[in-house]
Amino acid sequence: MPSQHAAKPVVDQIISARWVIPVRPRVLLHHHALAIKQGRIVAIGPRDEIHAAYTAADNTTLDQHVLMPGFVNAHTHAAMTLMRGLADDLPLMTWLNEHIWPVEGRFVSPEFVSMGTELAIAEMLRGGTTTFNDMYFFPEAAAQSAQNMGMRAHIGHVIIDFPTAYAANADACLQAAADLLPCLQQMPLIRQSLAPHAPYTVADAGLRGTRELAEAEQLPVHMHVHETAHEVEESLAQHGRRPLARLAELGLLNPRFLAVHMTQLDADDLTICRDSGLHIAHCPESNLKLGSGIAPVARIREQGIGVAIGTDGAASNNDLDMLGELRTAALLAKGFSGDPTAFPAWEVLEAATLGGAEAIGWGDLTGSLEPGKTADCIAISLDHPATFPVYDPVSQVAYCAGRDQVTHVWVNGQIRIRRGQAVDWEEQALFSRAQAWVKRIRDKDQNT
Amino acid sequence: MPSQHAAKPVVDQIISARWVIPVRPRVLLHHHALAIKQGRIVAIGPRDEIHAAYTAADNTTLDQHVLMPGFVNAHTHAAMTLMRGLADDLPLMTWLNEHIWPVEGRFVSPEFVSMGTELAIAEMLRGGTTTFNDMYFFPEAAAQSAQNMGMRAHIGHVIIDFPTAYAANADACLQAAADLLPCLQQMPLIRQSLAPHAPYTVADAGLRGTRELAEAEQLPVHMHVHETAHEVEESLAQHGRRPLARLAELGLLNPRFLAVHMTQLDADDLTICRDSGLHIAHCPESNLKLGSGIAPVARIREQGIGVAIGTDGAASNNDLDMLGELRTAALLAKGFSGDPTAFPAWEVLEAATLGGAEAIGWGDLTGSLEPGKTADCIAISLDHPATFPVYDPVSQVAYCAGRDQVTHVWVNGQIRIRRGQAVDWEEQALFSRAQAWVKRIRDKDQNT
Repeated sequence: MPSQHAAKPVVDQIISARWVIPVRPRVLLHHHALAIKQGRIVAIGPRDEIHAAYTAADNTTLDQHVLMPGFVNAHTHAAMTLMRGLADDLPLMTWLNEHIWPVEGRFVSPEFVSMGTELAIAEMLRGGTTTFNDMYFFPEAAAQSAQNMGMRAHIGHVIIDFPTAYAANADACLQAAADLLPCLQQMPLIRQSLAPHAPYTVADAGLRGTRELAEAEQLPVHMHVHETAHEVEESLAQHGRRPLARLAELGLLNPRFLAVHMTQLDADDLTICRDSGLHIAHCPESNLKLGSGIAPVARIREQGIGVAIGTDGAASNNDLDMLGELRTAALLAKGFSGDPTAFPAWEVLEAATLGGAEAIGWGDLTGSLEPGKTADCIAISLDHPATFPVYDPVSQVAYCAGRDQVTHVWVNGQIRIRRGQAVDWEEQALFSRAQAWVKRIRDKDQNT
Repeated sequence: MPSQHAAKPVVDQIISARWVIPVRPRVLLHHHALAIKQGRIVAIGPRDEIHAAYTAADNTTLDQHVLMPGFVNAHTHAAMTLMRGLADDLPLMTWLNEHIWPVEGRFVSPEFVSMGTELAIAEMLRGGTTTFNDMYFFPEAAAQSAQNMGMRAHIGHVIIDFPTAYAANADACLQAAADLLPCLQQMPLIRQSLAPHAPYTVADAGLRGTRELAEAEQLPVHMHVHETAHEVEESLAQHGRRPLARLAELGLLNPRFLAVHMTQLDADDLTICRDSGLHIAHCPESNLKLGSGIAPVARIREQGIGVAIGTDGAASNNDLDMLGELRTAALLAKGFSGDPTAFPAWEVLEAATLGGAEAIGWGDLTGSLEPGKTADCIAISLDHPATFPVYDPVSQVAYCAGRDQVTHVWVNGQIRIRRGQAVDWEEQALFSRAQAWVKRIRDKDQNT
């Protein structure tokens, strides 16, 4: 660092906090600070040293807070916030056939996706999520909403055989993806993936097309896999093999493949996962709520397979709260394995941040507080009855902090949430705009 | 109701809300109000009719809110908030032997219990809990804290064979309970129970003594039962029968018996539960976190057995958040049974309110909004990105509202939380007083 007598380098901002959890390395830092310039972390160090070494016009001091990387929500259908709570406590096929699909068939459009995604981003940023990995129709609308609201997003181009308002079949989906790629590449906060919906909704032809486009454009692939036992049974009947084995044969599995849900895993499946280097997005609350099954996270982690955490869409969760989700993941891993040491606090915080970033190929850019990475970070105040006393800040974040304790959120160094309030938009205005959609969806649902 | 021309009866306050969920009957009311006098609900009806029929100096209008009964936390060790996060992610016996018991052995005292219980009440009231069912040492201190802070509490006199700072053995515990009963009966917000710790920590003699005192004084009994498979195996080895069968033979099981945890239940156990009329306190997060097992709530409910919901102590949960706990209960029941219709929103809200009240023999007094019952009620604002849109307020409370959305809390008609802030105490002052304890506990724990 330069001496104090030389002119100090100027950075854009310095954020200091009582505790810093950089995630990588796995250390708890006391009274440390981040120096940030042009959206990137320049340095991280003891508060006094950072202030001695750098000067900034914008200084934030957070004396009761944990400063840590923002959460990476590894699986969302953001626009489905417009259907949150429309139909709960129903069997899966009733929920889909009688509620979700009729509403989607009638209303899904770029405007619907923009509105729903804006609501989702408003919720996610307030809860400390700085990146989300999305799969839905009209991905260009979701990407534009994220870019406009200053949220980092990995946008999946959905691929599905059956006709939707978005495209007629898998070929048309692949064509739409190829057409949109250059446009979304212009958006600085956006990266893209291909998102074949599931093994049972995309035939071999569409999956081969996915692999070809993914290889040609170096795109990650994001897909629901082994969500339910029924899916596995159906594949055995139809294809003579389990879905994961079929995807392996089609050449789709590699470290750029993110398999979502994965509640049904036998020993061979785990070997395929490990050998291919794929990542798994664990969505415990959605899996529980729909009665789909429970991913064996302790066994998955024993194999060294990368685990990320996602909320799934608000229609099946019903929130986009990563603090809640990571807590459920931590508790469920222990309860399901019977081992109270499974998925401990440090590991679950890593899965919800760096694990998610690595799962979508963004480990170079976000998910931990390290010099050179983007300043995607959040502050969580521990000054709350639910997090008193503080013997261990890592434990408090993992096991008791609520989304309301997220006070500050920065994406790419830009402040998005300050003292719990959105900086650039009025939530009431968002709700007002959305009400017209809500009324139409309610009327349609009640008359289906 | 009296005509508008006659002098209107005067009540203390009228609370009206956009939505009212009285719990019993199971209806959702729109634009309704409660009239409250001397801590009791006088009437519930459409807002305009209540205002036409009654006059009150104190009127509260909650236009974005659900008004509902406060939560009944059916199992707590409130004072253990002082040990929250002290030791996580450890095997049960390491956690107990190397952390919790040494700290308890060194520090537990009336002053410790007062301090820890005050912290717990501050957290519970902010999260919408209006009654808690406690089991800990020095119950007179916990009772006094609840009475002082205006919180309703069911205080269990702990009974345990091994010597503690509180008493030398089960006989001494029973004597302490008998001695304290008249004193605690003077506290209007307090009722009492006997709380034998667990089948493996109280021998037959202590359990017979418990039954005799419970019968003589008409007291409910509150006990950990079938928390782990190990407990059941040990009982089979030592007593030749499962713990529940042993308790039945000792004459303890009846509708005034609350069995906490109950993760291990075979068909005979379920029959014993059903035939005895006992209630079960389900503590899903504690059971998961300690890897104890998962109570089969769907099967329990099929038998018509009463289910309440509890958080357990903050050292094993790690929060006292009933909204979080009821959500975990709802999700886990579906995930564990594979049935997405299990433990639906209405039923889980009932378990977290009226189910808890009935489990502790307070169903006549609290747990639902009905004329004649006490005004123990809470308001939850749905004006939040996580609960937008509102197709179904019951679903929004069960599946997405956070504890931070609890804006108002009344116990016995007295406001305890207003716009999210404690009315009668400063949280910072509580934390300051507690810091001396925290320092001593940390020093002891690090030197054990």
